[in-house]
Amino acid sequence: MPASKNHIIVLASRPVGEPKPDNFRLVERDIEHPGPGEILLKTLWLSLDPYMRGRMSDAKSYAEPVEVGQVMSGGTVSKVIASNNKAFSVGDIVAGSTGWQEYARSNGSGLRKVDPTLAPISTALGILGMPGMTAYTGLLNIGQPKPGETLVVAAASGAVGAVVGQIAKLKGCRVVGIAGGPDKVRYLTEELGFDVGLDHRAADFPAQLRAAVPNGIDIYFENVGGHVWDAVFPLLNKFARIPVCGLIAHYNDSGPRQGIDRLPILMRSILSNRLTLRGYIVGDFAAQTDDFLRDVSGWLKEGKLKYREDIVHGLEKAPEALIGLLKGRNFGKLLVKVADE
Amino acid sequence: MPASKNHIIVLASRPVGEPKPDNFRLVERDIEHPGPGEILLKTLWLSLDPYMRGRMSDAKSYAEPVEVGQVMSGGTVSKVIASNNKAFSVGDIVAGSTGWQEYARSNGSGLRKVDPTLAPISTALGILGMPGMTAYTGLLNIGQPKPGETLVVAAASGAVGAVVGQIAKLKGCRVVGIAGGPDKVRYLTEELGFDVGLDHRAADFPAQLRAAVPNGIDIYFENVGGHVWDAVFPLLNKFARIPVCGLIAHYNDSGPRQGIDRLPILMRSILSNRLTLRGYIVGDFAAQTDDFLRDVSGWLKEGKLKYREDIVHGLEKAPEALIGLLKGRNFGKLLVKVADE
Repeated sequence: MPASKNHIIVLASRPVGEPKPDNFRLVERDIEHPGPGEILLKTLWLSLDPYMRGRMSDAKSYAEPVEVGQVMSGGTVSKVIASNNKAFSVGDIVAGSTGWQEYARSNGSGLRKVDPTLAPISTALGILGMPGMTAYTGLLNIGQPKPGETLVVAAASGAVGAVVGQIAKLKGCRVVGIAGGPDKVRYLTEELGFDVGLDHRAADFPAQLRAAVPNGIDIYFENVGGHVWDAVFPLLNKFARIPVCGLIAHYNDSGPRQGIDRLPILMRSILSNRLTLRGYIVGDFAAQTDDFLRDVSGWLKEGKLKYREDIVHGLEKAPEALIGLLKGRNFGKLLVKVADE
Repeated sequence: MPASKNHIIVLASRPVGEPKPDNFRLVERDIEHPGPGEILLKTLWLSLDPYMRGRMSDAKSYAEPVEVGQVMSGGTVSKVIASNNKAFSVGDIVAGSTGWQEYARSNGSGLRKVDPTLAPISTALGILGMPGMTAYTGLLNIGQPKPGETLVVAAASGAVGAVVGQIAKLKGCRVVGIAGGPDKVRYLTEELGFDVGLDHRAADFPAQLRAAVPNGIDIYFENVGGHVWDAVFPLLNKFARIPVCGLIAHYNDSGPRQGIDRLPILMRSILSNRLTLRGYIVGDFAAQTDDFLRDVSGWLKEGKLKYREDIVHGLEKAPEALIGLLKGRNFGKLLVKVADE
């Protein structure tokens, strides 16, 4: 029997600039019992991801915003604890998007069963989930890595960047990873096998990057923006490909900035260097889910891919953890352990 | 027998901002007689194109700049008037890049024979030459038009834009062309069969454009930049494709501009709308030359494509005509008739 109360984190107000704790509110409600065809899920793991900053705003984006007062949206791994749906049995582990709450009612749509024998179930939110598939599809479809090319990826110790760099190594690229702080940078080369790790906080970071890419940059996997982009941009080779899957450095921007207008500079480089910039979200490549699961779980089993999780305990810690994520405070895939199995 | 003197226009100095007549110099030299394996060409037509502004600068670009004192580079259609090369007979018509001069010596490399029965030989510099192939390859490879989609093209009465819009019509698109001035705008709908023609000089041009694309913009063929881009940008649909083949509004820019930095705004839109921007030059698709010649000459013969030439007479008029081209003063493909056959 579950507890009778559900704890939920709702969006209390829309942030201006960086989210603050009071943009979130923890509320207690009765657990909703499943109706006909429905199941009841107990949340085990909640994923925290940079895209959530976008959902907190009502600016036009690729997804609908969370309304004020609504449960924060988010990916979860859950256990079925009651079922009126033949497709699900009590005890099944499922991945879905049931949001920041301890229990969720579902009709089963949008849920996918997780095979606990494949890998720890939390990986369904990481390397075998949305971040891993974001890395896999963007790198292969847009980045199109070829042996001997140079790939640069920022947020390289994070859930997406670490997979991008490791797959690029498997494809024969020289890989330069960028992260914040010496521990993360060391991890890139010592654990993940990247060729070079660089700290974007270093005063001479642009010069370090230049030295690290003697043959220029063929693929820049853009998930950060900001001053990393400024350092990368002059080093792009002719015919460079730039998958754009995130811009975490800009998610807290509250308006346009004055300064040099870099748009004409970019456009001229797109023309003269024949760059390709292409934005995407993981859902654009949903048809490749089977390829992704086959390849990445295979590489995992062969020990060719590593991953790291950064775990906080308890749903009530989620707001602070998300705020930290947007500042680069996590180290590896950020997860909230909401409950034990 | 040719005349004994060759007239040549050389780059006298590099322009700052708009080119001026004194950036060019007309010089007279003896005609160089062809050596073993060489031929002598008499220039009949010289093409003037926006890319030439780039060659006058020493800024990094996709092609080497013209050196000060050197002949201005440019595409030509010429007649073989002397030949020590078995591959060419006196009287052959060839297209090449022999530059702004009345006579040129050549070893034959880079020349392609023009079939005068296919179309007027001047079209080898226009719809059946570099501008036509720029339109064809960029539209089909990057723009990827689908029936029912909306395409917007600027400089739409020009050598590239007119072909882009007409091929897009053949592919079933709604086509909105943008040009400068009422005559050109009328030409777009009345002669070329575009759905809408708009004058970018109109005070309410952004509102006119918005009204002209009720379903948004799926393909923006970017050959202009400037304020046309600003009007197009907010109207781009999800998954819009933007081939970037020219930025004529910026070619005379002499340095970075202060203002709102539009780069982060663009990057956010690339991400949330999953835009594709890709720069190219016609040479990137050289392997498609046969497809291009087959398709476009076929459409020409069937009367499905029209073209318009804007002809100035005499090599000495070329500098002024190029200066005018960069201000949008031409109407159709700008050509210099250097000599009669």
